[in-house]
Parts: sequence; C-alpha cells; structure tokens
Amino acid sequence: MRHLIDSMDLSLEELEELFVLTRDIIENENKYRDVCKNKLMGTLFYEPSTRTRFSFEAAMLKLGGQIIGFSEVGSSSVSKGESIPDTIRTVGCYADLIVMRHPKEGAPKYASFKSEVPIINAGDGGHQHPTQTLTDLLTIREIKGKIEDQTIGLCGDLKFGRTVHSLIKSISRYKGIKFVLISPPELKIPQYIRKEVLIKNNIPFVEVETIEESIDSLDILYMTRVQKERFFNEADYLRLKDTYILDKAKLESAKQDLAILHPLPRVNEISPEVDDDPRAAYFKQAKYGMYIRMALIIKMMEAI
Amino acid sequence: MRHLIDSMDLSLEELEELFVLTRDIIENENKYRDVCKNKLMGTLFYEPSTRTRFSFEAAMLKLGGQIIGFSEVGSSSVSKGESIPDTIRTVGCYADLIVMRHPKEGAPKYASFKSEVPIINAGDGGHQHPTQTLTDLLTIREIKGKIEDQTIGLCGDLKFGRTVHSLIKSISRYKGIKFVLISPPELKIPQYIRKEVLIKNNIPFVEVETIEESIDSLDILYMTRVQKERFFNEADYLRLKDTYILDKAKLESAKQDLAILHPLPRVNEISPEVDDDPRAAYFKQAKYGMYIRMALIIKMMEAI
Amino acid sequence: MRHLIDSMDLSLEELEELFVLTRDIIENENKYRDVCKNKLMGTLFYEPSTRTRFSFEAAMLKLGGQIIGFSEVGSSSVSKGESIPDTIRTVGCYADLIVMRHPKEGAPKYASFKSEVPIINAGDGGHQHPTQTLTDLLTIREIKGKIEDQTIGLCGDLKFGRTVHSLIKSISRYKGIKFVLISPPELKIPQYIRKEVLIKNNIPFVEVETIEESIDSLDILYMTRVQKERFFNEADYLRLKDTYILDKAKLESAKQDLAILHPLPRVNEISPEVDDDPRAAYFKQAKYGMYIRMALIIKMMEAI
Repeated sequence: MRHLIDSMDLSLEELEELFVLTRDIIENENKYRDVCKNKLMGTLFYEPSTRTRFSFEAAMLKLGGQIIGFSEVGSSSVSKGESIPDTIRTVGCYADLIVMRHPKEGAPKYASFKSEVPIINAGDGGHQHPTQTLTDLLTIREIKGKIEDQTIGLCGDLKFGRTVHSLIKSISRYKGIKFVLISPPELKIPQYIRKEVLIKNNIPFVEVETIEESIDSLDILYMTRVQKERFFNEADYLRLKDTYILDKAKLESAKQDLAILHPLPRVNEISPEVDDDPRAAYFKQAKYGMYIRMALIIKMMEAI
Repeated sequence: MRHLIDSMDLSLEELEELFVLTRDIIENENKYRDVCKNKLMGTLFYEPSTRTRFSFEAAMLKLGGQIIGFSEVGSSSVSKGESIPDTIRTVGCYADLIVMRHPKEGAPKYASFKSEVPIINAGDGGHQHPTQTLTDLLTIREIKGKIEDQTIGLCGDLKFGRTVHSLIKSISRYKGIKFVLISPPELKIPQYIRKEVLIKNNIPFVEVETIEESIDSLDILYMTRVQKERFFNEADYLRLKDTYILDKAKLESAKQDLAILHPLPRVNEISPEVDDDPRAAYFKQAKYGMYIRMALIIKMMEAI
Repeated sequence: MRHLIDSMDLSLEELEELFVLTRDIIENENKYRDVCKNKLMGTLFYEPSTRTRFSFEAAMLKLGGQIIGFSEVGSSSVSKGESIPDTIRTVGCYADLIVMRHPKEGAPKYASFKSEVPIINAGDGGHQHPTQTLTDLLTIREIKGKIEDQTIGLCGDLKFGRTVHSLIKSISRYKGIKFVLISPPELKIPQYIRKEVLIKNNIPFVEVETIEESIDSLDILYMTRVQKERFFNEADYLRLKDTYILDKAKLESAKQDLAILHPLPRVNEISPEVDDDPRAAYFKQAKYGMYIRMALIIKMMEAI
C-alpha cells in the first residue's frame, strides 16, 4: 500500500502518469463520474483549510465517492485525548482513504505507520504539502506544455514557505530549470535548500531583492503569501508584508507568455488589478488543484 | 448569469414560474431526483444557521447533487485574511452554485461581482434573506390558493426584522393586500418602508399595539422572533421580548382559516400549545422552504 | 413509529433479527448499496464525538443515503434559544431519520415526543448509548459465535461508565452470563445495577480490585476509559487513571480465545503493545459498530 506524505514520494514517471491521467479527466470528466462509487474518503483536518479541504472533497464527490470528516479539532474526539494512530485506525475502519492536515510536522507520516488505508498528507505545519506541489507542477505543464526549460521566479517568503521548498525540490529534477529567488534578506531560502538541492544538483539560480530587476527574464512568477503565523514578532511581519506586492506596473517588462502562480489564499501580495491580466494563472491553478487530486485519488485507491 | 441577492430580484412572472415548479416537485418528487446529479453546491455560512443551511443542503441532496462548505468562519481560510471575492472565485472553481450567509450587509452582492457561478444570498445581516421571502410567499399561495386579497398581520419586531421588510416589499406587488402592523411603539416599521413602499403604492395598513384588537380581521398572522442580537441593550430586550406571545386565548376570535406563519426559530413568541391548532402553519412553512429551494436551485443551475 | 432511546428498547428477538441482518450486510455489502437511496439522515451532535458520528455517517452513506447535520452546538441555531422539540420538528421536515447526541440525560427521549421521524439516541450524557451496546453485543456474537455462556470481565470506571451499565443490563438477559467486576473501590458499579439487575436476576458476579487475580477465568475482557469529565476533582482522576492499564504481562495467564473489547477512544488503559495480540478485538469492534448501525438504519427506516 502507498501513502503520499512527501512531494518527493513520487518519481518523475509516476508524476507523468498522474499528469496524463489528469488531462484525460479534464477532457472526459464523464468517464470518471462513478469510478469511486461506494468508496468513502475521510478528511481529517486538525487545522482549518477551506481551499485544500474543498478541493479534496470536490474531487472525491466528482468521482462518485462520499466523505466523512472534521474540519477542526473542536468537533472531534481529539479533545478526549485519543492518539493519532488510534484515530487513524478507527477512521480506517470506515473510510477507504484518509486525507489529513495537521499543525505538527511529521504527524501524517506517524499516522501512516498504523494505517490500514492509504494516507494523503494535506499539509503538516511548515513541513510538507505534496498536493500543492502536484498542483504547481501540473499548472506549469498545462500552461507551458512542459515542465522542462523554465526560468522560475519565486517571490516573497522563501524562508518559511513550505510550498516554495517543496516546489524547488520537485522541479529541480526536471532539466533546464533556472531559479530567480526574490525576497528580502531576512526571508531568503534556507541553507539546506541552497546547498543540498540547488548547488549539489548544479541548478542555476540568482538571488535578488526586487521583482523589477528580474521580471523580464521569467517564464513563471510564483508569488507567495507572507504568513503572519510564521513570524516571530508582529513588527517584522508589518515591516515586510507589503514589500513584495505584484501590480500592473511591475508587470510592464514581463514576457507576454509569463504565467503568474500563487498557492492561495493571498492577502495583498498580488493586487486585484492583476486578476484580469491573461498572464494571471492562480485561479486556473486552483481548478487544476481539484483535477490533479481526482487523478491522485484514483491512483491511490486503484479505482481504475 | 443570474444571482439571487434581493427578494425583489425576481419579477412576479418569475415567482409564479417558481411556485408552479415547486408544486410539481411536491407532487412528483421522483421526477427530480437526479436533475442535479454531478453538480456541486458550495454552502458558505460565515454565520451559523442550522435551518437555512439544512434546507438548502436537503434541497440539493434531494435533487441528486452534492455539497461542499463550511458552517462557521472558524473552519475556513477567512482567518488567514482572504477577501470574499477571492474565496468566491476559488469556491467557484469547484462548485456550480454558491449559497452564502454573511453577517455583513451587502457581502453577497459584493461577492457576486467576481463570481463565475450563480450566488444565492442566504441572509446578510439585518438586510436581506430572499429565500425566506420566497418561502413565505409560497406558503401563503399553497395554503390560501393565491397570494392576492389577503389581510396580513405582521407581529413582533417590525423595526429590525429583515424577513418582515422583505415580505412587505414583495407581497405589496400583489393586488388586494392589506397589512395590520402589530408591534410596540419602539419596534414599529421603519419610515422608509412606511413611505417608500406602503404609502407610495397605496397599500392599506393599520398600526396597532396588541394582537387581540385586530386578530378577527386577519387571513394571515405572521409572527416574528424578537432577536436579542438586534437590541442595543439587555434591558430593552427583557422588557419587550414577552410582549407579543401568541397563545390559544388570543386565537379565540380568529378566523377558522387563519394561517399562522413564523420564519423560525422561535423562542417563546408562540406558545407550544398553539402547535396542535390546525391553523398553525409554521412547520409546514419550514417544509415548503425546502421545496422552493429545490425549485430555485433547478432554475439557477438551469438543471431542467 | 419506533425510536431507539434506551438499549432495553429492543427485545432479544429484535436484537437477533438485527444481528442476522448485520451478518448478511457484512457478507453481501453490495446487496444493500442503494436501499437508502433518496433518504436523508440528520446527525445532530450537540456534543462532539468523532467515532460515533463517523460510524453513523459511514453507515448511511454505504446504504446510498445522504446526510445533513452539525457536529457541535456552535454552528447550529441552538445559540438563538431554540428548544429541542422545535429543532427536531424542523429537521424532521427535511430528514427521514434523526441521530442525536446531547450532553443532557433524557434529551433524546424528550425530543422523541414531538418527532415525526424516528430518533436514535447516540449518547445522552452519562445515561444511555444504545448503539454502543448493540455494537458490544454484536462483537461478542461475531467473535464467540453466541452471546450466551460467557464470563465477562468489566474493568475500569464501573461507577460512571454508561457503556458498562447498558451492557450489564442488556447482556444479563442472555443465559449463562457471569460477571467479574474489576475496579478500584471508589469506582464500583452503582447500587441500582447491583440490586436491580444482578441480584434480582440471580446473575453470578464477583468484585475484584486487580486484573491479574481474575483474568484466567475470562472469555471477554471489556476495558473502559477513565473519563476525566466524569470526575469531580483533578486529584482523584490523576490518582486513578493509570491504575487499570492492560499490557502484555497482565495477559500472560489469559485464555487463548479471550476477546478484549473497548468502546474507544482509549487514552492509555490498554497499552499499544496489546494491539497486535490476536485477542485484541477493539478495532474489529469499531468496524462492527458501523455494520450494526447499517442494519439499525435499515430497520428503523423500513428500507427493506
């Protein structure tokens, strides 16, 4: 049995299979309407997340499956002191697949040891969020026709942002990838990413402090939210949160086929005036997120 | 594309179409079991409401559709600072229709500007609650055989009660309507309803302070809850909340075919001893609320 | 119409019918996939309970039915002061069956007086939890081949534990039952169980203070959680909570076909090292809990 805990759990071949299946689902949605009929998915969200929960639930429902779950700890037995492995084993008595978000790093991994059904990590603290990475890769592939040979700008909180770290690790396996890392000095990517991923694999990258100085070279601009909860004090957050706001003016020298991505939710790091620009791809990205989760559910439940 | 934000968004002809469709649904429920198959409804309740949420969800499920949603702000991404238009656009990536309740007046209208799927306002603060008005109109039409030519008593909090204001505006478009407005002086209908709706359209109305002095003239008695949250201080609430309680004694001089309506939930403004009176129509009204929402969902999703 | 409020509401004949139906569901799950199609179950959880709610919802979904509900009071109209009978009558307008958990003893009984659809008590405070008792009885029957002629050890909090009281009352109706009551002096079974159930019906029982002194005689060992919320002060809880922990060492003199049951969630009263022992039956028990609820829903909705 397979779990999806880390975005690196899937080989490039397995990713390609998922992307091909996703494309078929997008083109022939009707074909997949009942493939999870009579199947139950458990959605255990120990931390709230509208978007991730909704996209998983929509994915399962569109495949004809059904859902049991909780969207916050308050309405679960957790308050009675039950351990995660016990909760997982019990939910595994009812559900055929478990999707789990937890504020503690490693909780889904720990849960998977005792689980009798496949577990998908839907985010564990600042650690991993593999289905976001799948979404990001699919979006690039769908918009650009391929994942290889892209110059990718990553902008915002590169220190704490888990989606950025996972994306760097995953996409560095494709050939022809270059990174432009756009952040304030305080929020640069951590040393282990720089050394263990970029330098070790000879991935070209530059580090800059403004969007303007590099935007003309980018194929992809990946914006990220400056998450208040990742900061140690309010003053740092307030000083930095508005630094990296993308607006129409900053896009002037950008390529015509630039794709602007964002994992959402955004606060104000992309001005709403950008939403109508044809290069804005972040709402498409949200939709792709649902489709790739449909493919993932099918694969993990061996539903076809 | 059409949204339903205000009870006045629908013309009398469109209302009649809805009522006719609802009647057919009641008579031939089986015919409509799968008309929303493969469709998703998003229920975004930024403010809790069991009854409204349940009736929408039951309606959608009875049509073969499915649901994603949240029932309070705590378990959503709202806490991360996401704007309403962003939440709506994202949910619109997954759902084919959005039902939204929000404590702020105008929030559903604001949401509709950016939405790519139809939005139904399920209540926005003290402002609008159009599906309650649809329910009230349908209930009168079902019980009385027509909406025209009714003398309607409206009792309780006529100042803050949004359901009363919407009902007055909507039903004033039908001919032969008279109102008896029963409230303490402090909770009379606002000036804009009196002038812009009643006087302007020559609708006959009287204002009285007790149920007893007018009940014998009524075809409909619409009771409303005195909502604690609409009052500015506890003392006013306590002094007034028990003033307008309907009991068996007060019903003695009422017509035999009076219909007693209430939007529910009630606190104590109708004594439980009235529940068994054949003129009590408020639980029927709750059921009609589900059926008219089935018709509304069908129309808005163009499901037939 | 029938409600299930108390575990004694069902006769031995009715129990047997349920157990036979459950066995058929386990063996021929496909046969029952659509028997509740087009039916709605309302799950009203005034108190959170992951396990019980999930097992009811999984049961209904596996029968092809659908669900509306709330998992805690915060997201319901209860906060607006609505009475339980009113909530029940309203939900009964939408749902064909209501499952209700409430912190107050007697609430489901009180609710059933006004309900127009069947009500299942999913736990009312320290009082009754009849579907847990059904689960316990089924598990014994499935594992032992019969419910009669068992020596049953009940261990832990025998004073406040409602599942223990219900199980004693129910299983005492079968012939050949003996009890070994294992608890600290402070948490012995209440007088009314001792006198009105055990002594009155000539059921053999012994009371001991340790697991070790009696485990070799047991066919069933039913462990229970020491619930913090049932204690009057923290000190008593801390002193007693670790007293009755089952581990491998204590199982050494146990029979080879002992069945270890637990209503779950456990805190630490069974060491995880016991989980892999073939005599550990508590996760099977959780699964049986779902199957018997499927049978119960079918019977109460007269779905076959």
